[in-house]
Amino acid sequence: MHVSSDFFRQIASVAAAETLPRFRTRGAVDNKEAEGFDPVTEADQQAELAIRRLINAEFPGHGILGEEHGSENLSSSHVWVIDPIDGTRSFISGLPVWGTLVGLTIDGDAVAGMMSQPFTGELFYADGAGAHYDGPSGSRQLEVRKTVNLADAISFTTTPSLFKGKMRQRYDDFEKKIRLARYGTDCYAFAMLAAGTVDIVMDPGLQPYDIVALIPIIEQAGGVITTFEGGPAENGGDILAATTPQLHEAAMAALRG
Amino acid sequence: MHVSSDFFRQIASVAAAETLPRFRTRGAVDNKEAEGFDPVTEADQQAELAIRRLINAEFPGHGILGEEHGSENLSSSHVWVIDPIDGTRSFISGLPVWGTLVGLTIDGDAVAGMMSQPFTGELFYADGAGAHYDGPSGSRQLEVRKTVNLADAISFTTTPSLFKGKMRQRYDDFEKKIRLARYGTDCYAFAMLAAGTVDIVMDPGLQPYDIVALIPIIEQAGGVITTFEGGPAENGGDILAATTPQLHEAAMAALRG
Repeated sequence: MHVSSDFFRQIASVAAAETLPRFRTRGAVDNKEAEGFDPVTEADQQAELAIRRLINAEFPGHGILGEEHGSENLSSSHVWVIDPIDGTRSFISGLPVWGTLVGLTIDGDAVAGMMSQPFTGELFYADGAGAHYDGPSGSRQLEVRKTVNLADAISFTTTPSLFKGKMRQRYDDFEKKIRLARYGTDCYAFAMLAAGTVDIVMDPGLQPYDIVALIPIIEQAGGVITTFEGGPAENGGDILAATTPQLHEAAMAALRG
Repeated sequence: MHVSSDFFRQIASVAAAETLPRFRTRGAVDNKEAEGFDPVTEADQQAELAIRRLINAEFPGHGILGEEHGSENLSSSHVWVIDPIDGTRSFISGLPVWGTLVGLTIDGDAVAGMMSQPFTGELFYADGAGAHYDGPSGSRQLEVRKTVNLADAISFTTTPSLFKGKMRQRYDDFEKKIRLARYGTDCYAFAMLAAGTVDIVMDPGLQPYDIVALIPIIEQAGGVITTFEGGPAENGGDILAATTPQLHEAAMAALRG
């Protein structure tokens, strides 16, 4: 199935109408988890409703799984997976490196998806035939770079503290082998991997809605994305993305210890 | 002395002409330090030359201290301090959270300064009378928020690994007391503090050119910025910025252990 770029642009537009006016305001933030920090803003909730309306109107038989408003019609072969604001911690800090994620799975495989960043006016999407970028200075194909060695790699993770026990030791050892380690940009780091400026992204403990939209963007830009053990990324979990099969294998080996 | 907003916009413009076309390209990066990672791009060097030309033309008697091209006329009472690309690691990773920093000191005090981010089209500046923001959706005053308790604070630092020995333990203890800790955005975090979406920024081991431009922006937006010991920030070192005197004191106390 091919998803039109116009449909992705429509989703980005209705989501932006809910998120952007609420970005950098000083509104209340409520916590959805008693422990830890996982804010749900009005922006998050309203953007997901707007995206659901658009999908229901365009593809009435399809299923929808969303972070904020649960699931509907999941017995369909076609299921859309939504995270209206991935990177809520960046959002509440005022940093323009969060994104709206919408992906489509067919029989469990992620085949198309988008990430939009409305403050910068950027849209990263994969339509089934290729990965593309719309930005302030025009449109282009997305293509990963050809990095094969850890020593040349720029790697992102949300924070090393998500790696526990022996995995933390392996992560710290991995950091010593790479060119540059950076933290904390959620979906934006995966988008930069597809765009050819980042080489590895590893993030433990992801939900399906954190990653489904990004899988086709990375794969159709030429990259590799799996769990830490090499399994499919569609169900979330501990996720590893890399520019090339060689670099992906080297990063997996580092995580195996 | 009052620096006109037009002069800051001119600086942002000539710097952007050198940095933006080189952002997200795949050019060579050379290391200026044998150890560690401190890339100097052509963008960095050319932007500083362009800024120096502008300052020399407008203020021929003034001194200039720059990251890339050294110092001139430092015996002047008026010295401009330049970091053409603060956040080079964000720059090479493709993240739009680096900035061009230019500050003015008079007899050692930072009185005016600017941070520009050309990809997002943002300019944060302090002209001696107040702190201001130009962005894609218009202009406004910059004003810190009134956070007074660590438990309510969003705090940024480049990476905890910059805190060594007993300071690392104190930093880790500090993180447990705050609302949210985030890493890795250099000047952009200071700008967000002035803009009212971040409460604390602490960064050890800064150079004067990393911080001089940001001091007036934070102070004229109503915030507090000093060294970890409460001394003037103009000479760099371990720098702590906070929204209010109460929050600043609470953060200093945490770092004293």
